[in-house]
Amino acid sequence: MSREHSLTPALRALLASRRTAALGTVDASGAAFVSLVPFAIDPASASLVIHISALAAHSQNLQTMPQASLMVAEGEVAGEAVHALARVSIEVLATWAEPGSALAAQCRAAYLARFPEAEPMTALGDFRFVRLSPQSARQVAGFGAARSLSTVELAQALGPTAA
Amino acid sequence: MSREHSLTPALRALLASRRTAALGTVDASGAAFVSLVPFAIDPASASLVIHISALAAHSQNLQTMPQASLMVAEGEVAGEAVHALARVSIEVLATWAEPGSALAAQCRAAYLARFPEAEPMTALGDFRFVRLSPQSARQVAGFGAARSLSTVELAQALGPTAA
Repeated sequence: MSREHSLTPALRALLASRRTAALGTVDASGAAFVSLVPFAIDPASASLVIHISALAAHSQNLQTMPQASLMVAEGEVAGEAVHALARVSIEVLATWAEPGSALAAQCRAAYLARFPEAEPMTALGDFRFVRLSPQSARQVAGFGAARSLSTVELAQALGPTAA
Repeated sequence: MSREHSLTPALRALLASRRTAALGTVDASGAAFVSLVPFAIDPASASLVIHISALAAHSQNLQTMPQASLMVAEGEVAGEAVHALARVSIEVLATWAEPGSALAAQCRAAYLARFPEAEPMTALGDFRFVRLSPQSARQVAGFGAARSLSTVELAQALGPTAA
C-alpha cells in the first residue's frame, strides 16, 4: 500500500474521532473569521454537516460567501509535543438547508446521529443545517507527511465504508 | 465581581492551557484558509507568537494580508458534550520578525519558553517568527456566556500577571 493510500484510513479515523472543527469564513470586509463548530459526517453525500444560528457571525459570512475552510485536528495530549499533530484543512462549499426540505431531513439525521443531545436546539427558530461539500483538502499526518487531496479522495474518506 | 470581569481569568487560563490554535488567513482569491499553529504568549507585548515556514500557504497569505483570525478552544473530552466548549476568536494583525532583529529575539524567547523542543526548527532557514497583535476578540465561555473584548481587555488577558 502506498503512503498516499495509507493516509486515507488515517483521515477517516481523524474525522470520525473528532467532533469539533475550526470553521474559517470571510466577513464583509474580506477578513477571515475562525469559529468553533461541532460537525457531523453524512456518508451518503460524502459531506459534512453543521447546525448554526442565523444570528451568528459565521452564518452571516457564509450567506455572503459560501466558500469556507474547515480544519479538524487531533487533540493535544498533556506532556506530548504538538508540532506534528495530525490535521486536515478542507476547502468546502456551504449549502443552506431550507427548513422542511429533504436536504434538511438528511442533514438532521446525520447531525443527530452524532449529537443526540443537540435535538432541543433544532427546535430553535434561528438555527439551520448547512451542508459543507468538500472541494479539496490538505492533510498533514505528521512531520514530512503531507498531501493534497482531490474531490475523489475526499469522497473516499467521507463516504460509506467499503463492504 | 461582574460576569464580564470573571471571564478574564477564564480566558487567561484557556490561553495558558492550550498550545495550539486554528489560524484563519485569506488567500489571493479572497477565500479563507484555516491551519493548525502552535502558539506562545509574549506577556511583555500582550501578543501571541507563532513560528511558521515561509513556504507554507498561511505564510504566503499573511504576507499579502496581515489581518488574520486566531481561534483557541478548550479540548474535547470523551463522553462529554462539545457544544458549550470554551473558546475565543481573536482578530490579530501579523508582524514578521526580521531574522536578527530585537523583535525576533523577543518572539524566540517567548516561543521557546513554551516549546523548548522547537529549538532545532529555529535553525531552518525558511522559518520565521511572527507576532500576532490582538485587535479585538469574541469569547464564548459556555451557553449564553459570550462577550466581545476590547484591546484593553485583551491586554489584561495576555499581559503580565498582576502582582
